[in-house]
Amino acid sequence: MKLYSFFNSSASYRVRIALALKGIDYQTVGVNIRIGQQNAQAYRRMNPTGLVPTLVTDDGEALGQSLAIIDWLDRHFPQSRLLPDSDPARSRILEIVYAIACDIHPVNNLRVLRYLSEELNISDEAKKRWYAHWIQQGLTAVEQLLQESQSESYCVGNTPTLADCCLIPQWANALRMECDLSAYPRCKAVYDACTQLPAFIAAAPENQQDKLSA
Amino acid sequence: MKLYSFFNSSASYRVRIALALKGIDYQTVGVNIRIGQQNAQAYRRMNPTGLVPTLVTDDGEALGQSLAIIDWLDRHFPQSRLLPDSDPARSRILEIVYAIACDIHPVNNLRVLRYLSEELNISDEAKKRWYAHWIQQGLTAVEQLLQESQSESYCVGNTPTLADCCLIPQWANALRMECDLSAYPRCKAVYDACTQLPAFIAAAPENQQDKLSA
Repeated sequence: MKLYSFFNSSASYRVRIALALKGIDYQTVGVNIRIGQQNAQAYRRMNPTGLVPTLVTDDGEALGQSLAIIDWLDRHFPQSRLLPDSDPARSRILEIVYAIACDIHPVNNLRVLRYLSEELNISDEAKKRWYAHWIQQGLTAVEQLLQESQSESYCVGNTPTLADCCLIPQWANALRMECDLSAYPRCKAVYDACTQLPAFIAAAPENQQDKLSA
Repeated sequence: MKLYSFFNSSASYRVRIALALKGIDYQTVGVNIRIGQQNAQAYRRMNPTGLVPTLVTDDGEALGQSLAIIDWLDRHFPQSRLLPDSDPARSRILEIVYAIACDIHPVNNLRVLRYLSEELNISDEAKKRWYAHWIQQGLTAVEQLLQESQSESYCVGNTPTLADCCLIPQWANALRMECDLSAYPRCKAVYDACTQLPAFIAAAPENQQDKLSA
């Protein structure tokens, strides 16, 4: 199995966590999105969105979209299930997942930030406020959803789930962008607990072979 | 069952299609997001994201996020399944779903367009280019995914699925914003076929009781 991904892409990071939690062997193929490698014809043929990551299975099937990939992994490698079949856990997990994957991440994605600079001539300072604004809107909601779930080390329940696969990369991104995260103690507790686990450590951007120095 | 929603919100529209395809009775409670009703304390208590829609089940459970709601509906009302259990259909459907729900819709959401105008003083013309840019990026990918799926009237297979629940509202939005959609004949064919069906007609914005005249 091959994962076409970028070390610092949070969608790639989600899938790496899922792979590591399930103990699945795979090969990383670095796609440097900073210099546009995702737009190469060969990559676009595999993944018409031109986004990372793409999983290529041992049968040669190419699958895009981090959440679709994790759904596939969770069905084909049922050890360490990331999304249980039944409620209330399933609905709570999905509500958190989409609050991150739909409401926060896409608006603060690299290509959107680049459009703000390059097409709209937005200053770096205004771009930073943009980033912080969507983080604040989104994490305020996630913090409340976590309070309702009354879990401790994880978003929901006593084991890592799809919600943790999404929250940890988003939090790491917000830390990198130097956002004020003091208003989200439950999110921070989950981040602190998860990032102690070997699977999350193995999946972290700084431990990827395609890591760039700058 | 109650659906708190806005007639012209495409996330609400997705859920209305799912409800109609399954023939589920429900009550609509209009939340006018143009005047900020989603920020009222009572609504935020049910849905901390302050976004529409929210489904309140007959047990009084409130669930946010259109895709989480449809997942719940598909498990509790298994007639007219919207997401099959197995591949290749399931993976193909999810790839299309997320290409719309993560890559197109959030970036062109009302709150984002408002931030562009109100916080960044972006002109209406530049905002229109922003909208059209993400539509073009996203639908180019969806068009190719549809070509690969080789279906006719629907995104994947011979019955409406979750992918159609997402594509139809997104296409309707792009039409409303007067985008050039001539490059996406497969998407158009799906839109034309689906919008002939009673369930899609019942779910359309113009047929909602909370429809505003302006």
